[in-house]
Amino acid sequence: MKEVYAVIMAGGGGTRLWPLSRRTQPKHLLPLLGAETLFYSTVDRLRGFLPPERILVVTTADQFDILRSQALSIPDKNFLLEPEPRGTAGVVGLAASVLAQHNPQAVMCVLPSDHYIGNPEAFLSALRTAVAVAEDGYLVTLGIPPTFPSTGYGYIQRAELLPGAFPQPVYRARRFVEKPDEVRARQMLDDGEHFWNSGIFVWRVDSILQEIKRQMPELYQVLEQIQGIWGTAEQTSILPEVWRLAPIQTIDYGVMEHAERIALVPASGLDWNDVGSWDSLFLVLEADEQGNLVRNVEFFSLDSYRTLVYANERKLIAAIGIEDLIVVDTGDALLLCRRGQSQQVRKVIEWLKQGERQEYL
Amino acid sequence: MKEVYAVIMAGGGGTRLWPLSRRTQPKHLLPLLGAETLFYSTVDRLRGFLPPERILVVTTADQFDILRSQALSIPDKNFLLEPEPRGTAGVVGLAASVLAQHNPQAVMCVLPSDHYIGNPEAFLSALRTAVAVAEDGYLVTLGIPPTFPSTGYGYIQRAELLPGAFPQPVYRARRFVEKPDEVRARQMLDDGEHFWNSGIFVWRVDSILQEIKRQMPELYQVLEQIQGIWGTAEQTSILPEVWRLAPIQTIDYGVMEHAERIALVPASGLDWNDVGSWDSLFLVLEADEQGNLVRNVEFFSLDSYRTLVYANERKLIAAIGIEDLIVVDTGDALLLCRRGQSQQVRKVIEWLKQGERQEYL
Repeated sequence: MKEVYAVIMAGGGGTRLWPLSRRTQPKHLLPLLGAETLFYSTVDRLRGFLPPERILVVTTADQFDILRSQALSIPDKNFLLEPEPRGTAGVVGLAASVLAQHNPQAVMCVLPSDHYIGNPEAFLSALRTAVAVAEDGYLVTLGIPPTFPSTGYGYIQRAELLPGAFPQPVYRARRFVEKPDEVRARQMLDDGEHFWNSGIFVWRVDSILQEIKRQMPELYQVLEQIQGIWGTAEQTSILPEVWRLAPIQTIDYGVMEHAERIALVPASGLDWNDVGSWDSLFLVLEADEQGNLVRNVEFFSLDSYRTLVYANERKLIAAIGIEDLIVVDTGDALLLCRRGQSQQVRKVIEWLKQGERQEYL
Repeated sequence: MKEVYAVIMAGGGGTRLWPLSRRTQPKHLLPLLGAETLFYSTVDRLRGFLPPERILVVTTADQFDILRSQALSIPDKNFLLEPEPRGTAGVVGLAASVLAQHNPQAVMCVLPSDHYIGNPEAFLSALRTAVAVAEDGYLVTLGIPPTFPSTGYGYIQRAELLPGAFPQPVYRARRFVEKPDEVRARQMLDDGEHFWNSGIFVWRVDSILQEIKRQMPELYQVLEQIQGIWGTAEQTSILPEVWRLAPIQTIDYGVMEHAERIALVPASGLDWNDVGSWDSLFLVLEADEQGNLVRNVEFFSLDSYRTLVYANERKLIAAIGIEDLIVVDTGDALLLCRRGQSQQVRKVIEWLKQGERQEYL
């Protein structure tokens, strides 16, 4: 019986959009690109593809209330609460274990909750192809055709075409490439064989559990224990201590890089962005005639260009003679960053952690 | 009988240090350069020169309480309250009229309340010379020897030496020069004949009243009426309607530019600054090793240089790769300005006035 599920990963904290993203205000809960949060948009774009009962949300207990309030159609039992975040391998494993109790042949679409997708129809079209490929037992990844030599994304190289009657060409994957330098990024852009790793994966429950068993036996052991207690009276009391034994790992490193039978579905025209830094907003949001991106700000501009001005509370900001800046105000904190250098925000985070400035994290 | 008074002008609003200076928070009430306000420092630097009973403060009623709280030694009756600000000509005229009732030959030292003076001893030394010259009936102005080709100050050209036994050379003044362009500023710096107009004036009460009578007869008429009611039961009820007839004018334009018997006392080594713009703070405050001026801010800096970072409430500010900026945060408003362009802040003020954004003024 063909059953398709979406598994939305919504447990992360996220520091790369500091000072807006905080421990208590993770990126997927920010109304970063409009009136809606990235999480809401992630759920919303599945309409017409899956009924709400087929959407699982993996998160932590402290985010449950707010996430549920943004996705009221999803049944409470579909929110899988991690006792603590253990990385995306744990998220995937937990969801797969829960689904396996019901239907090991079900297909699960693993979706980050904090990405931007400008064209949901193109996304669903690629997802449908991926589901068809996954039913044949492949671990499928959506690859985004690169549009510029990004050094901020990981890449996947395609191998030969996969035989089969799919709605669009599908490839085997040759290998995963970590974030490259600019020279390598340009090569990969030019050779036409490389795709951005979207972090969107589609597979059958039994396929992924088999790979976890082979490559991450410690995690698999944890998952077996969880299957024994999930839905029983013991779940609440035992889950935390079992979960603590799960290795902290991403699904990319833990499974995908050395997995067998990986397929790559090129996902064209998605207008996809992982919103992984303040600089990325220049690719997603529309600038005014001076190239300025202004959000939630009463803005006065004189000879000022190509600047992002963002506040989380209504604020008056006056700019005189400034260019190529990123300015983010959250009341208690202010980020001033040269455009192109927003990856360095992690240095601020390190400083905050060292300096007993926990309230700003 | 030789009597010397100080008249501190503390009624202005001031917009040039927006967003920190506001209608309700004028520049002289800001702790801009340290823990004390500029007004407090202005009073404080007169210690040993004049007793508090000889210090008059001209201001408006709404500032009376806070000014008094910062200068408790000055008697209440020494605060002269303008019903509304009418420019420095009005301030001077009002103080002169009040002093004339008591002693027309008294010398008054007119002092702005919002300037920086790094060396109070040099200031008092110049002031003593000015008092001696003023006793001979001159209108005396303190001229600051320029140290760089400033386009932000007015200048005064000296004429021939004034004969007399003064503690230092004193000149007649040839003419007042408005804020020059850079070429002209450099010429004046080089010729050694020009001094910055400090806005500090010293004269006998009868000398200035005579010049006001000659050059500003409308104002003089108002002052005569005020002398008739000052200190009587009618003062409170009649002063506002009389005061409204005083022309709005500065003492520079209204009197000094065409006055007779003007003397110029060069005031060297004062380390004087009118704190007339955010850029001026770079001349007054001490920068860190990266050239950054940081006040009231928990500051993280990465590859950031020559930037002023100022907040009026404790705030965390992180700077990455920025240079030559002026950043001023007041909670409700934020100024971002290229260094060297802070004169343009007046454009923000114009915009605020046009746009019904009175709360930010």
